[in-house]
Amino acid sequence: MLDATLAAIRPADDGAMTQARTLHTRLTKPAGSLGALEELSVRLAGLAGTCPPPLPEPGAVAVFAADHGVHRQRVTAWPQEVTAQMVTNFLTGGAVVNAFARQVGASVTVVDVGVAVPLEPADGLVPAKVRPGTGDLTSGPAMSRDEARAAVEVGVRVAGQLADDGARVLLTGDMGIANTTAAATLIAAFADAPADAVTGRGTGVDDVTYRHKVAVVEAALRRHRPDPAGPAGPVGVLAALGGLEHAALAGFILGAAARRLPVIVDGVSAVAAALVAAALAPPCRDAMVAGHRSAEPGATVGLRRLGLEPLVDLGLCLGEGTGALLALPIVASAVRVLHEVATFDSAGVSEK
Amino acid sequence: MLDATLAAIRPADDGAMTQARTLHTRLTKPAGSLGALEELSVRLAGLAGTCPPPLPEPGAVAVFAADHGVHRQRVTAWPQEVTAQMVTNFLTGGAVVNAFARQVGASVTVVDVGVAVPLEPADGLVPAKVRPGTGDLTSGPAMSRDEARAAVEVGVRVAGQLADDGARVLLTGDMGIANTTAAATLIAAFADAPADAVTGRGTGVDDVTYRHKVAVVEAALRRHRPDPAGPAGPVGVLAALGGLEHAALAGFILGAAARRLPVIVDGVSAVAAALVAAALAPPCRDAMVAGHRSAEPGATVGLRRLGLEPLVDLGLCLGEGTGALLALPIVASAVRVLHEVATFDSAGVSEK
Repeated sequence: MLDATLAAIRPADDGAMTQARTLHTRLTKPAGSLGALEELSVRLAGLAGTCPPPLPEPGAVAVFAADHGVHRQRVTAWPQEVTAQMVTNFLTGGAVVNAFARQVGASVTVVDVGVAVPLEPADGLVPAKVRPGTGDLTSGPAMSRDEARAAVEVGVRVAGQLADDGARVLLTGDMGIANTTAAATLIAAFADAPADAVTGRGTGVDDVTYRHKVAVVEAALRRHRPDPAGPAGPVGVLAALGGLEHAALAGFILGAAARRLPVIVDGVSAVAAALVAAALAPPCRDAMVAGHRSAEPGATVGLRRLGLEPLVDLGLCLGEGTGALLALPIVASAVRVLHEVATFDSAGVSEK
Repeated sequence: MLDATLAAIRPADDGAMTQARTLHTRLTKPAGSLGALEELSVRLAGLAGTCPPPLPEPGAVAVFAADHGVHRQRVTAWPQEVTAQMVTNFLTGGAVVNAFARQVGASVTVVDVGVAVPLEPADGLVPAKVRPGTGDLTSGPAMSRDEARAAVEVGVRVAGQLADDGARVLLTGDMGIANTTAAATLIAAFADAPADAVTGRGTGVDDVTYRHKVAVVEAALRRHRPDPAGPAGPVGVLAALGGLEHAALAGFILGAAARRLPVIVDGVSAVAAALVAAALAPPCRDAMVAGHRSAEPGATVGLRRLGLEPLVDLGLCLGEGTGALLALPIVASAVRVLHEVATFDSAGVSEK
C-alpha cells in the first residue's frame, strides 16, 4: 500500500503554474505586490494541476500521538503521562490546537499511533497503535522496520480518510513527550547536520538538560550511523531513530501528495517527517507548505534542506499543529486571489 | 471633537496585563511556547482593561482613498485616474482587499476623503471628501491646517461608526496613487530619518524613477523643514507633507484607541499615519497591532520608531489593508487562547 502511494506521487504541473503566473499579471494589483503569496498560489496551481487551484478549505489537522523510549534518558522535564493527558485535552477541545482550529474552521482528529498507555475509545480519536511507544534509540532501534512501515501506512490512511471526508488541505499535528529529541536525530540524519545544530530546548529545558540532550542525540547518531542513501534506506533510518508519530506524519504527507492536496507542515516534528517523506518520494515536496518557523533550530535546518520558506515566524514551539493553523488563512488567501480578484480589463482599471 | 478623542485615550491597564500573564502560566502549554502571541494577548488585555479581552471579531477595514498633488512630479508610473477606478473595484468586490476580507469575514468600507474626481454615491462608500486631492508638497503645503484636522476627524468618525456597527477590531486600508511618496516624507519627519532610508519603490518604479522619487522626498523635506515638536506641531507637519488618507488614517487609529479597540496597522501609509497618531496621543500606541512588514523600507523605519514588531513578513507591498487582513486570524487566535484553553488543573494535565 505504501508502494502504491509512492508511485501515485507526481511532480507539479508546469502548464498550470504558467497559467497562474500569467493570470497574476492580469489581476488588479501591481505585479509582484503580493510577495511570497504569488509564488505560493502558483505552486498550489501546479500541485492541483489546474488554475485556479481549489480553495484549500476546509482544513483538517491530524494530531499523531506517541511516546518515546528515549524519555528515560531525561531529555525533558515533562512526565511521559502528559502525552495521554494531552490526548484527552485535545478530545475535549481544551488545547491550543483546538482553539486555533476553531478560529479557522478546521477539524481536529487525534490518532493514537503509539501512546504508551491504552486509551479509551472516543469521538475524534483514531485507534491505530503500532506499539505502545518506541524503544530507547540510544540503546537500540526505536522500532522495527515493519513497525516503521506500519506507522507510515497509518498516516497515509488518515490522509486518505480526511480527504474522503471533504478536507481540501491537510495540516500536520503531533503530540509526544520527548519527541523533539527523536526529531533532532532524524533531521541530523536526513539533512546531514551535526547534533548541536538541530537540537533545541523543546518545550523548555534548562542549560544542563539541554547539553545532555545534545549528547543523547550525538550518542544516537554514533550508535546507528544513519545513512538514508545506504542499504537500510529512509525506512531503515526512520526505524532506528524516529518516533511513531514522525513515521505516521511522513505517511500523512505522502498521502496528501498522492491525492494532490496541499499539506501545511507545522513545527520540528513535522519537518523531520517531511524530510523522511521527501527521501521516499522527492516530488511530494510540491505538496508541502511550510506553515511556520518553529523556535527549534532543527526546523530551520530541515526547511532549508527542503527548500521551503515558512509563512509565519513568531517564535512558537508548541507543536500540536498550532503553527500550521496560523498559516491556513494565509494559504487560503493566496489561492482566493486567483479565484476572485478582477482583471484590469474586467474592472476597467488603467495600467502603468 | 479631535481634542475630546485625544483626551479619551488612556494607557494600557497594568492589572489586566498582569492577569493575562498569570493566566498564561496556567494554560495547558509550556510557558512561552506561543512566542510573540503571548505578549500580543497580554497587550490586548491591557488595551481592553479586562482579561481575557474581547475576541477581536468581527473585523472592519476602512479603505481611505485620496489623490496627491505630488503625482505631477512623476513619482509613479500609474495614472492618477487609477485611484477612482480602484474605488469602484473595491465597491464591486474585485480587489485583493475584498478577497482577503471575505477569507476572514471582515467588512470593507471605502471612504472618499480626497479623491480628485467626483464619485457617484454607492453602497459601502462613505462620502467625506475634504478636498479633491492634495496640493504638490514640493511647491507648497499639501493642505491647510484646517483641512488636515478635518481629514483626521473623518477618520475618527469612521472608527466610531464601525465600532457602533459592531466591529471589535479595526483594520487600516488606503488607496491613493503616489501615496508612498507622501508616506515617505511623513516617516522621515516623524521618525527623523533621511529620505533614502524611507523611500521605496512603491508599486513598482524603475531605477531612474526611484532616484527621482528620493530627490522629490528630499526636496519636500528641505522646503518644509518639518519638526513635529516645533510650533507647527504634528498637525502642521501632517498638513505640509501628508495625504488626506494619511490624515484620516491617523484619526482612525486615534478613534480606535479612544474606544479601546485594537487597530491592525497595514503597510507604509498606515505606519506613516500611526506615527502622526502617536505624536498626537502617545498612549494610542497601545491600541496598535502591526499587521505586517511591508516591503517598503519606510514601514520598517516607522515600526521601529513605534516599537512594534509585525506579525506577518511576506514581502507584500500592495496597501489597501491587505497585510492587516492576513494578520487578523493570528490576532484573533492569540486572544482566543485566553478564552478557550484549559488550565493544567481543569484538564488534569501534569506539570514539569
